[in-house]
Amino acid sequence: MAARQPFLRYLNQLQAQRIDEELMSTHAFSIDQLMELAGLSVASVVEHTYQHQRSKPLLVVAGPGNNGGDALVAARHLKHFGFAPEVLYPKAPANPLYQRLVTQCKDLDIPFVADISSAVVDARYCMVLDGIFGFSFKGDIRAPFDAVIAALRATSTPIVSIDIPSGWDVELGNVSGQGLEPTVLVSLTAPKLCAQFFQKTGRAHYVGGRFVPRALAQKYNLATPKYVGSLQFAQWVDEDTSQ
Amino acid sequence: MAARQPFLRYLNQLQAQRIDEELMSTHAFSIDQLMELAGLSVASVVEHTYQHQRSKPLLVVAGPGNNGGDALVAARHLKHFGFAPEVLYPKAPANPLYQRLVTQCKDLDIPFVADISSAVVDARYCMVLDGIFGFSFKGDIRAPFDAVIAALRATSTPIVSIDIPSGWDVELGNVSGQGLEPTVLVSLTAPKLCAQFFQKTGRAHYVGGRFVPRALAQKYNLATPKYVGSLQFAQWVDEDTSQ
Repeated sequence: MAARQPFLRYLNQLQAQRIDEELMSTHAFSIDQLMELAGLSVASVVEHTYQHQRSKPLLVVAGPGNNGGDALVAARHLKHFGFAPEVLYPKAPANPLYQRLVTQCKDLDIPFVADISSAVVDARYCMVLDGIFGFSFKGDIRAPFDAVIAALRATSTPIVSIDIPSGWDVELGNVSGQGLEPTVLVSLTAPKLCAQFFQKTGRAHYVGGRFVPRALAQKYNLATPKYVGSLQFAQWVDEDTSQ
Repeated sequence: MAARQPFLRYLNQLQAQRIDEELMSTHAFSIDQLMELAGLSVASVVEHTYQHQRSKPLLVVAGPGNNGGDALVAARHLKHFGFAPEVLYPKAPANPLYQRLVTQCKDLDIPFVADISSAVVDARYCMVLDGIFGFSFKGDIRAPFDAVIAALRATSTPIVSIDIPSGWDVELGNVSGQGLEPTVLVSLTAPKLCAQFFQKTGRAHYVGGRFVPRALAQKYNLATPKYVGSLQFAQWVDEDTSQ
């Protein structure tokens, strides 16, 4: 009998892209469903971690792609959870999906801010939710996000990153030295390779996106997070676990 | 100064339809988003109520409309929560939305059963999730659902109803005497008028669908449920509450 293969615990960029595509083709999910559950899981981690710091607003920074969409969904849920999110969305795409997510935020009276500085972030916000770049990120950090990330790097305000700390190489980590250094990381579906470098520091690492079909988990031999009850997130433990 | 208007606590059928339409037009939600959050809130109530009875499967009965869609979403989440749902879907529509929800259930190895009897329900299942009819229901209970509801009425297995106890008039309650008598009711968005008759018996009444924009709540002067933390459902208390 062959020994059991070790579980796949950290995805490379190609695996992450393929799993995302398969969720929306073979497994028949719409992007609306996946983004809603992903954003809700992120908001639930923030609520779990920062529930006693609701007296100050929090800043949600949304990038140009799906990571930004997850951030907009999280902003909406955080408002329902009693937080005071404000959104920085420097490059809002014309895509109707994102436009609808913006409308949903504005209908909850969530302010959209035009710009930030390190001083304003430190003075005004209890934390920053980083939804700038996700698992598709490649190459250099381009404008206007270079300035945004530089401003966030110069603050002492805690950062929660969605899926990838923005500016990090998806597989190699913060190789440019220009990426964010979050306090909390919420991996979606499964951690990407760069999360190993985050994990090593012992900071808070969660996983969300509780929608992976068994067939998909088996195909990739994914390690399954130990979700509890109806919670939409789980703590990620750095060891091999059974499915 | 005018006295404050009392909050609207129970919707009539027209109000329920209008609020649903406004969520998807003015407030820019897709049906995928609303159904995902509604189904998740229902599954969370079931987990909260029946978490210690997971040794037996539960039966999810899905009707031909959106209430059935909510039930399919709930079935999927319940499987992720460690329950063993089985689905009865006697009249699956050709609509691609519902077909995708069925695929998502089947990908989790959720069995679809072809028929039920009262004896099988009592022997096999710990509870029944009733997603047969929702706030659009009017007139008589037609085949094949007349036989399904009659079979469920003859069981002693607890029933959790989604939005409306199936067979009840949305405003007047169980006037035909042929409707289900659930143990738990999960109202979605806001309770409908018939929920007053359920509420009077003192059984467990929850509300889910934590997505109502403030502007919409204000327009209809809706009473807002007292949600806690990141929970997607709240207990419904039969008294006037502040927003």
